Amino acid sequence: MRTTEIEIRTGNKAVVYDLGDEIDQFLAEAGAKDGLLHVWVPHATAGLAVIETGAGSDEDLLTAIDQLLPRDDRWRHQHGTHGHGRDHVLPAFVPPYASIPVVGGRVATGTWQSICLVDTNIDNPLRRVRFSFLPG
Amino acid sequence: MRTTEIEIRTGNKAVVYDLGDEIDQFLAEAGAKDGLLHVWVPHATAGLAVIETGAGSDEDLLTAIDQLLPRDDRWRHQHGTHGHGRDHVLPAFVPPYASIPVVGGRVATGTWQSICLVDTNIDNPLRRVRFSFLPG
Amino acid sequence: MRTTEIEIRTGNKAVVYDLGDEIDQFLAEAGAKDGLLHVWVPHATAGLAVIETGAGSDEDLLTAIDQLLPRDDRWRHQHGTHGHGRDHVLPAFVPPYASIPVVGGRVATGTWQSICLVDTNIDNPLRRVRFSFLPG
Repeated sequence: MRTTEIEIRTGNKAVVYDLGDEIDQFLAEAGAKDGLLHVWVPHATAGLAVIETGAGSDEDLLTAIDQLLPRDDRWRHQHGTHGHGRDHVLPAFVPPYASIPVVGGRVATGTWQSICLVDTNIDNPLRRVRFSFLPG
Repeated sequence: MRTTEIEIRTGNKAVVYDLGDEIDQFLAEAGAKDGLLHVWVPHATAGLAVIETGAGSDEDLLTAIDQLLPRDDRWRHQHGTHGHGRDHVLPAFVPPYASIPVVGGRVATGTWQSICLVDTNIDNPLRRVRFSFLPG
Repeated sequence: MRTTEIEIRTGNKAVVYDLGDEIDQFLAEAGAKDGLLHVWVPHATAGLAVIETGAGSDEDLLTAIDQLLPRDDRWRHQHGTHGHGRDHVLPAFVPPYASIPVVGGRVATGTWQSICLVDTNIDNPLRRVRFSFLPG
């Protein structure tokens, strides 16, 4: 297994960050052929989503999260900025792991799929992401 | 790693499609013993769920998706039929990957678990699914 | 692949059960170094979540599940106690699998992450969980 952890600057607002370039670079450096790419976020307030980006769905996802897990007073977890407790529930629904087949050195994604970091935590501008490649 | 992509006809309404037969066939052809089965949907508007089928829960899931991600005007993504934008948010919550242990050539599922394709996209009647087996 | 199934007593109320001790023990017995830990729940009414425990987020998650998938009369699935149908929809959103990189024999989790069994099924006090380790 080849594994490495990188740092992503997500800033101080909620973002859907497309990891495509970082994944291409990792697979190239790993000399990956066929196997499984594993993506992992070692944080309790972020997740990973495989969605289309650039046509509104990234914003739609953040809006849906705001509606389903509102940034309000309902949360028992009381640390951080107002409503931050909902960021701690997010990873149960948008998990911090994703796995994608790699065929001939490239992720077997469809045309409209991007592997994205979903970071709704506005208190933490830097995030780590771990890529691992399991040869098949 | 043994990997193959198949085509599933899901038609023009939302469906939960049980992949059990296709998975049994794949594992048999792969000569699988112990390892990990990886299931992958290379589409931005479908996901995979491991649920019970045939006792109402498949319909319950589609209803829950309609309630949590309504097929209405709220979505920025504006392509396709009315409300299709919600299909693009679905994979963040019902991911396009699933992984299941294989023990002695069979998935280690419980009695009531079926591995299902969840396709709420009514514009696309044909779907591809990729099975991969990683020997342990 | 090293794989084993254990039993967890979750009792007759909804719980978020931290699997940290069981995972540490499994990885030690497996003599794990670098690879992938796979966690699997062979039940149709439970899932796995990687969240912070002990600061309110475990209770927040159960509350969020009650709000998003209410334990009421809406479900077609009619077996079990009142509202149990929602437990059968849960695994579509909180999946019964999780995978975590293992580096140097330890899961590469962040400080606040715990790998947890989420069992909202109050009819079934005993649950099985399967751990598998794929060497990298």
